[in-house]
Amino acid sequence: MRCCHICKLPGRVMGIRVLRLSLVVILVLLLVAGALTALLPSVKEDKMLMLRREIKSQGKSTMDSFTLIMQTYNRTDLLLKLLNHYQAVPNLHKVIVVWNNIGEKAPDELWNSLGPHPIPVIFKQQTANRMRNRLQVFPELETIAVLMVDDDTLISTPDLVFAFSVWQQFPDQIVGFVPRKHVSTSSGIYSYGSFEMQAPGSGNGDQYSMVLIGASFFNSKYLELFQRQPAAVHALIDDTQNCDDIAMNFIIAKHIGKTSGIFVKPVNMDNLEKETNSGYSGMWHRAEHALQRSYCINKLVNIYDSMPLKYSNIMISQFGFPYANYKRKI
Amino acid sequence: MRCCHICKLPGRVMGIRVLRLSLVVILVLLLVAGALTALLPSVKEDKMLMLRREIKSQGKSTMDSFTLIMQTYNRTDLLLKLLNHYQAVPNLHKVIVVWNNIGEKAPDELWNSLGPHPIPVIFKQQTANRMRNRLQVFPELETIAVLMVDDDTLISTPDLVFAFSVWQQFPDQIVGFVPRKHVSTSSGIYSYGSFEMQAPGSGNGDQYSMVLIGASFFNSKYLELFQRQPAAVHALIDDTQNCDDIAMNFIIAKHIGKTSGIFVKPVNMDNLEKETNSGYSGMWHRAEHALQRSYCINKLVNIYDSMPLKYSNIMISQFGFPYANYKRKI
Repeated sequence: MRCCHICKLPGRVMGIRVLRLSLVVILVLLLVAGALTALLPSVKEDKMLMLRREIKSQGKSTMDSFTLIMQTYNRTDLLLKLLNHYQAVPNLHKVIVVWNNIGEKAPDELWNSLGPHPIPVIFKQQTANRMRNRLQVFPELETIAVLMVDDDTLISTPDLVFAFSVWQQFPDQIVGFVPRKHVSTSSGIYSYGSFEMQAPGSGNGDQYSMVLIGASFFNSKYLELFQRQPAAVHALIDDTQNCDDIAMNFIIAKHIGKTSGIFVKPVNMDNLEKETNSGYSGMWHRAEHALQRSYCINKLVNIYDSMPLKYSNIMISQFGFPYANYKRKI
Repeated sequence: MRCCHICKLPGRVMGIRVLRLSLVVILVLLLVAGALTALLPSVKEDKMLMLRREIKSQGKSTMDSFTLIMQTYNRTDLLLKLLNHYQAVPNLHKVIVVWNNIGEKAPDELWNSLGPHPIPVIFKQQTANRMRNRLQVFPELETIAVLMVDDDTLISTPDLVFAFSVWQQFPDQIVGFVPRKHVSTSSGIYSYGSFEMQAPGSGNGDQYSMVLIGASFFNSKYLELFQRQPAAVHALIDDTQNCDDIAMNFIIAKHIGKTSGIFVKPVNMDNLEKETNSGYSGMWHRAEHALQRSYCINKLVNIYDSMPLKYSNIMISQFGFPYANYKRKI
């Protein structure tokens, strides 16, 4: 039998067949590689490794320093006194002052006239007086760690240095000085409170389920996480001019699947609100403040359709500071 | 042109070609899958996941209970008093008494005559009075967690319950009540000590680098790890009848690459040695005891050709126990 013209050209035909085969093999390899990559288990990586990657992606350089974010309203005398203290804290990279005094110029000129200063301080003029202004993703923020402090709170340097070292060991949690908790009631309605409230659980002692952000270190990525939350959360905070810290604890607990914060017992932390000449005494003095915070917890449970807060009874102190604070009283 | 017979039977030829092609594809897929599996990065898994796997491999059932291992020599009156206390501690699975009184029968009969008891207590008669007898891999040990306590140490139940809950959160570290440290000197020779010694580092407060095992929780896998150490380590402990705890801290710090232990401040822990009628007052009263421990540190550095101990200043207490222990003294 006589083969066709093509059959009689074995070399070229073989070449074409090999070429076709190779193309098929390559295509298959690519498909398999793609499928396997998609199927690979999500690796729960070392926290430090994850953070280093975030460093590269965010352009943040280091875990070794932090940025103070301080929101202020109508207490410029306290603000300036506190800035004199905080600007000298070790490992501080920069201060961002969130200036909620709408219509009033921030004291840049005064600040500069009293320079030089150890680190840069940026006054961010806001367009509306909102509690959640301090949770923006500030472009000036260059560190992974944020130190957030209320504008009437004086935290001693040893407390800050120690708490920052604790945050470096637990960078996915809020490490701070003010613990609070939620309590359940038989009706399923939650209440917000502190030590005066019923301790949850059946064991000894008390528990906390939130660490307030107004005296704490936390990871700056949580600012982005906050911005990505449902509009209802932002609206709740705007309506109450409250609860941004409760919301942050919800968000973080939900995100990491464990307790949102670690409480570090402060050795020397003061509230200076009585020392202001502004006549303004802070949001927590409003009659409805505490009730609002219980209200917020129930609203947030509703928005997230879950109660993500988890209890903890871990209290951290600095070994040997104050001197011999670990000695037994035998 | 006329094609050959084979060309004219497109169905069968196509079939053979498709078959060949399929075989090649399958072969390639298998090779790629094999190669990718070999190349997959080693997943640093969740600690709990790793422990659950160990559970299966070791036959250990749970992280929810612990085994008390108490070594005893010549203080049976204290031992029995302590057993009355410890046998009732929540989450205790079993007690293993390491009976170092060679030639003297363990008090099994007395113990049984005073039953029933809440949990099993096993008296393990030893053949030689060795300090490191308590670090054997006891076949009776069924839990992941070990509570190791010296036979003159009374730790209150609230302290134990809390420290166990802390261990469950840090299962790869020794969680205990007695912190110690090593100090470097300019000669490179190390010394062993406690709070009376120079605090390492330049910051505030003190640091510890060891948590003594004689009042602590730790992972039972470390018993196996201890047994696998160089003979020189075992010989050092046998020669000094000391330093098993220092060795354990070296071994664990080296193994996990971070500080070997976490200090939990005890609320109520007593040493009962003054209450014994045996006339025997414990190893640490020997004149050479403290010097031996410094000696051991330098020997171990020599054996391991490194100083793996790492400092920590984290002190953990139970939030709200004693009542309101977190309130600020403003």
